[in-house]
Amino acid sequence: MYDVIIIGGGPAGITAGIYAARKKLNTLLITKDFVGQVGKTGPIENYPGLYQISGLELLEKFKNQLKEFKVKIKTADIRKIRKVQDKFIVQTERKENFVGKSVIVASGRDPRPLEIPGEKELIGKGVSYCEICDAPFFKDKIVVVIGGGNSGFEAAIGLAKFAKKIYILEHSSKVLADGANQERAKKTGKVKVILNAKATKILGTNLVKGLICEDRIQKKEKTLTIDGVFVMIGQIPATGFIKDLVDFNKIDEVKINSRTCETKTPGIFAAGDVTDVKYKQIVIACAEGAKAALSAYEYLEKQKSEKAI
Amino acid sequence: MYDVIIIGGGPAGITAGIYAARKKLNTLLITKDFVGQVGKTGPIENYPGLYQISGLELLEKFKNQLKEFKVKIKTADIRKIRKVQDKFIVQTERKENFVGKSVIVASGRDPRPLEIPGEKELIGKGVSYCEICDAPFFKDKIVVVIGGGNSGFEAAIGLAKFAKKIYILEHSSKVLADGANQERAKKTGKVKVILNAKATKILGTNLVKGLICEDRIQKKEKTLTIDGVFVMIGQIPATGFIKDLVDFNKIDEVKINSRTCETKTPGIFAAGDVTDVKYKQIVIACAEGAKAALSAYEYLEKQKSEKAI
Repeated sequence: MYDVIIIGGGPAGITAGIYAARKKLNTLLITKDFVGQVGKTGPIENYPGLYQISGLELLEKFKNQLKEFKVKIKTADIRKIRKVQDKFIVQTERKENFVGKSVIVASGRDPRPLEIPGEKELIGKGVSYCEICDAPFFKDKIVVVIGGGNSGFEAAIGLAKFAKKIYILEHSSKVLADGANQERAKKTGKVKVILNAKATKILGTNLVKGLICEDRIQKKEKTLTIDGVFVMIGQIPATGFIKDLVDFNKIDEVKINSRTCETKTPGIFAAGDVTDVKYKQIVIACAEGAKAALSAYEYLEKQKSEKAI
Repeated sequence: MYDVIIIGGGPAGITAGIYAARKKLNTLLITKDFVGQVGKTGPIENYPGLYQISGLELLEKFKNQLKEFKVKIKTADIRKIRKVQDKFIVQTERKENFVGKSVIVASGRDPRPLEIPGEKELIGKGVSYCEICDAPFFKDKIVVVIGGGNSGFEAAIGLAKFAKKIYILEHSSKVLADGANQERAKKTGKVKVILNAKATKILGTNLVKGLICEDRIQKKEKTLTIDGVFVMIGQIPATGFIKDLVDFNKIDEVKINSRTCETKTPGIFAAGDVTDVKYKQIVIACAEGAKAALSAYEYLEKQKSEKAI
């Protein structure tokens, strides 16, 4: 039985682990990996104290620091969290069960999928959600980036170091990326933007071979011969395992008390990008993790003193 | 005219500066120093990414990072902030005026004074509020620490490396420090705790010579012959310059919207230990600074678009 089970190995989860351990809580941290959104981030300028560090390096520092403390770490996907009396049973996809007196949900966000034919089947075979992870595999290839926002343009700029040509498909009639990103993409000489384009099917069996897209205005279909598809249309909070124990806002973020990281269920706290915290930033996610751990500590102390009466 | 004037050079103020500059805001940061509470802190274990760093080293990293960005820095004490139409006039103690479209108050906390005769007069002459800063000056001396909480005991433990004897004066009938701190203090063999003791006067003209204290139970006065007085009875939010533009809670902390760092006056934001943020931690202060800067940016954008109509 753990005092607290932390779900997630990003900035919020790791910081929660450090703070929980320093409060001498018996702590388990379960994460599917230690990459998450931060690991996919390029040079970071605004994390206080570590100027111009890459996302992976920063996460490495977080992880190494966590290892200095007594926190049990388990690599697994979470299937479900159930409340049984005042305890929580956390079940993994492999149906292992862990019991905790409290839970901190810091599971972050997953990339938003296109949900079109061929996408799921070709993940890792040309379909990617992470330019930093996968760009080097596309040397001298032709790729499509889906999404004309900043993340789409940043992916295209990164890809331009390897790929020979990059299409950016934007669903609306206007590019949403900052002017600076548009200019940098143009300078590569490799990027072509296609507006009003709706991706409808990814082609290929073992490897991506092409993409069918539709011009939303002219209602015409077109097939692009390409080797890779980078899906950059945003993220969704990773909350599949906790549907009934917390409340969500309109965009599926876990609602929290912003002072304490409490959710609607006493004993369940949430921190970082999975929540409705207004600004999604690494240092803010860290702080939210610290808050959640300190609140979990207070909750456990209160429970103890109530049981003593 | 600045887009934003940040008051304070601690974790919250510096992070606000970094975030404001990255948003291309014309930014002025005014601080009396870059020491604050963090600079007085010993090894820090729980700042994510920088394990076991001293407070001064961490602050040095923050400062150096700030210098990478276009932020004007001014060393001064603030006297008053006035609102004139939709602008803010920040006046320093030397009566210089700076005008900003928005203000971020990140002035942190000041040590709580004893408010007894001799204290003010002997600051820097044996009266100190910072063990880390001043302990080395008391080699082979006898000192008193006022306050039997964790900060008092930690000061005593630090002082034991230099001083030959340390009294801890605790006002109540019970020591409030953690067991671990009490034990460490005991191990030094140099620390003597005096309970129910109320300091009433610090003696000395050019240097501290003694301290008069009263036993609160027996109503007896006693004079300790000592060379230094370390006042460790907590901190108070540093808000003297902004009495009417913000609301305060019962313990004089600036009330903020915990999602956005807004105060009751549109255009004035507050961040970090000066506010009613629940947990006072370095990483949380940093995050609050980031939030305040992003909120100031949104406020300025909204003002711009309103004026354009």
